[in-house]
Amino acid sequence: MKTRIDMDVEMYLPVVREQMSKLVRFSDGEWAVISKHLRLMTLKKKAHFTRSGEVCGHLGLILSGSLRLYHLKDGEDRTGYFGLPNDFVSSYKSFLKHEPGIPSIQALEDTVLITLSYLSFQDLLIHPVTAHKMERFARLIAENMIFCYEDRMEGFVSESPAERYETLLKKKPAIVQQVPQYYLANYLGITATSLSRIRKRISVPAK
Amino acid sequence: MKTRIDMDVEMYLPVVREQMSKLVRFSDGEWAVISKHLRLMTLKKKAHFTRSGEVCGHLGLILSGSLRLYHLKDGEDRTGYFGLPNDFVSSYKSFLKHEPGIPSIQALEDTVLITLSYLSFQDLLIHPVTAHKMERFARLIAENMIFCYEDRMEGFVSESPAERYETLLKKKPAIVQQVPQYYLANYLGITATSLSRIRKRISVPAK
Repeated sequence: MKTRIDMDVEMYLPVVREQMSKLVRFSDGEWAVISKHLRLMTLKKKAHFTRSGEVCGHLGLILSGSLRLYHLKDGEDRTGYFGLPNDFVSSYKSFLKHEPGIPSIQALEDTVLITLSYLSFQDLLIHPVTAHKMERFARLIAENMIFCYEDRMEGFVSESPAERYETLLKKKPAIVQQVPQYYLANYLGITATSLSRIRKRISVPAK
Repeated sequence: MKTRIDMDVEMYLPVVREQMSKLVRFSDGEWAVISKHLRLMTLKKKAHFTRSGEVCGHLGLILSGSLRLYHLKDGEDRTGYFGLPNDFVSSYKSFLKHEPGIPSIQALEDTVLITLSYLSFQDLLIHPVTAHKMERFARLIAENMIFCYEDRMEGFVSESPAERYETLLKKKPAIVQQVPQYYLANYLGITATSLSRIRKRISVPAK
């Protein structure tokens, strides 16, 4: 089920550089150092990027496919977030501290990622050519994750399930096509039936 | 109620440098640049560090006193976290994006902080003397905030209120002395009566 292949990443590098440049613009010299550390990872549908209790060894950038982060509570899944193409993904505390993490991250469909390992991440943070820019890159990654956490917490505190669904649609319109209803409802903390009712209501404009 | 005084910060600088050096060790030259940007802020009990709907203009390091971050939902408070001495505090998304934030942060008692303004933060990130180390400092601040968010989410997903209380005690033993019962219960998502029952049970060792 699970395949992690370090294929030739050459063909993906321009896309990855473009995505990373939305956070930090790397010079050709810096990029030459960084790109040597990048690996391609492919995950079959339902394979795990990381499992609860494992050290999450990678920071990933999703090229195609989708993932979801979830927790298990009393045998039940609770979905924490979805990763779609161009999203960075990791069980970040586990990755940064290099210690076993609690959440699991699983591919919702066949998924391709570019990854940076923990050791590569540490190397680039002290490499004389990349140190400064990598600090910035890692800062912006962390800050963007904080924005996600704050938004999600806000959603639970101040929005109804219907409002949370609409906010999600606004931010990630592709999610409805890409993520099964069941997981969307799970993420919103409602039943699939309630989500279906909400969707019907939203698709009919108010008179 | 609210007093923000830019007093002479000289006397606090060694303490602040010591605290910041737990994240990044600054040289004397770097510290000379950074310390010029630091200001002292004093908040009377119940005064706000930031209010919902305001731009949170500062990142603070608590020197004495305590704060709590909360959201208002249907007229009710929901406590998100507590800041105790040596903790960094901010409505971080609002601070970083320089846009109005949703949470409020309020002093639980008379509180003294050292603060860095948004503009100072931006200046130090591009100042030739401090840029690299400030990127690292800001990265580590953001990463530590992620650890807090992940821990809190984990607590709600996988621990009972009693376990969440014990985890909190382990991480921040001072919190019981410093934070009123009412807010502790509110943070744990339980009633003050339930918290009182939990505390009684914990103080009696299991036979």
